[in-house]
Amino acid sequence: MTDFQRSRRSDSAALANAGKASGTASGLVGAARPIPVLEVFGPTVQGEGMVVGRKTMFVRTAGCDYSCSWCDSAFTWDGSGKDDIRLLSAAAIIEELEKIGGGTFDHVTISGGNPALLPQLSALIQGLQDRGCKVALETQGSRWQPWFTAIDDLTLSPKPPSSGMTTNWDTLDDIVSRLGEAGNGFCLKVVIFDDADLDYARKVHARYRDVPFYLQAGNGNLTETDPQAMLPYLVERYEWLISRTMPDESLRGVHVLPQLHTWIYGNKKGV
Amino acid sequence: MTDFQRSRRSDSAALANAGKASGTASGLVGAARPIPVLEVFGPTVQGEGMVVGRKTMFVRTAGCDYSCSWCDSAFTWDGSGKDDIRLLSAAAIIEELEKIGGGTFDHVTISGGNPALLPQLSALIQGLQDRGCKVALETQGSRWQPWFTAIDDLTLSPKPPSSGMTTNWDTLDDIVSRLGEAGNGFCLKVVIFDDADLDYARKVHARYRDVPFYLQAGNGNLTETDPQAMLPYLVERYEWLISRTMPDESLRGVHVLPQLHTWIYGNKKGV
Repeated sequence: MTDFQRSRRSDSAALANAGKASGTASGLVGAARPIPVLEVFGPTVQGEGMVVGRKTMFVRTAGCDYSCSWCDSAFTWDGSGKDDIRLLSAAAIIEELEKIGGGTFDHVTISGGNPALLPQLSALIQGLQDRGCKVALETQGSRWQPWFTAIDDLTLSPKPPSSGMTTNWDTLDDIVSRLGEAGNGFCLKVVIFDDADLDYARKVHARYRDVPFYLQAGNGNLTETDPQAMLPYLVERYEWLISRTMPDESLRGVHVLPQLHTWIYGNKKGV
Repeated sequence: MTDFQRSRRSDSAALANAGKASGTASGLVGAARPIPVLEVFGPTVQGEGMVVGRKTMFVRTAGCDYSCSWCDSAFTWDGSGKDDIRLLSAAAIIEELEKIGGGTFDHVTISGGNPALLPQLSALIQGLQDRGCKVALETQGSRWQPWFTAIDDLTLSPKPPSSGMTTNWDTLDDIVSRLGEAGNGFCLKVVIFDDADLDYARKVHARYRDVPFYLQAGNGNLTETDPQAMLPYLVERYEWLISRTMPDESLRGVHVLPQLHTWIYGNKKGV
């Protein structure tokens, strides 16, 4: 970990504690503890993974136990978004989703940061499902939460070497095993930047052979503001990933996808 | 139907009869009848629909009961591919897939034309599944085949007004109902070019509310040979479809996707 990453990690820990402290101070625990929220937006298309293309609303939570070098939502943990964090109840989040999305949606994606840091999400998940919504959630698989088994579209996205993070295989084994026992539909997704990441992906796929597996072309161009200017780069990265995976006998049962929303919106937030 | 389309339709009927006549002449029926094949290729990524991004091999059959104005595989029915049709047994097709794809794949997509014209596909489907392959198939939903219930990823793609075709709702109702009774995983997909197509899509979604529903941006630029030159057009068409569907309360539970392979390969065949 670089000093830069270490400093950003401590900002992130402070953010997570902000939510925790608030819960503790008011005597709230579990489902009643407020949720640290950075973005609520939609409806838009899900640009990634197992439900790519799905019309969905997004709720982005603050705080992460990781600090991936290429994170496209670093404002959730590096301190730069600190002033934008709101501590909201599940009911308040659902009210905001309904205000923004009206009657146009029946699917909500919870992303982060790492939403698996938040035990109190169970009330939000249940509240959305009570209203007829399906709920998707993405996490790196570094922490278990009992509400994992309630998620309709759960993505575990362990991070490859290019991220600078280290996978705790015991934790990931435990999460995959519990989800399997619960009979949950879930998938694994690995973001790929280079050949070392592909080696890591082969290891993940071999270890969890029966879990639907997604490879996603990484976006290393996070500062470009013109979507049109990014397109040739994104196409090249996707083509590269296709060319590496198609002839590979150890990567048979895979999906290979871009981040579709970046092809349309570039690095723009809130879409 | 224009005279042009009518003339192309009769070519197509001739092709379908070629397969049928061959079966009859040699006394072969059902599974033993040879399959008219135009393309065998892969592995590549599935560019559309419910398994978009999936690494897959493709088998393209000849002959269609439709003649959509914007068909991107018109060579399967307009006579232009007549000399390339091979009448192959299921075993010969599997042998060719294994020769081309080696040990790199575990998924095969059967496309057309309309493969639902071919009762003899059951042997191919069974043979592939016996080898551990999953099988995907796309058809417009104009004909039932008993082997529909054996397909792992079945897409019914009824054609909207811009195609020039007319949907037989009784037939489609019957197919959807039989698949539902069989407990099959399948989806509906509609290609969209304009607002009349969107009206049609709303009707399909309202009629079969519980079936996963995909909208696909149509490609009306079938003559461009440079993939790079097509990109701005394809992005614009996808953005248009997103902009029309996101605010729409009657299109809630939808996936909205491009034809991803055209973003990479343009109109190139065999990829």
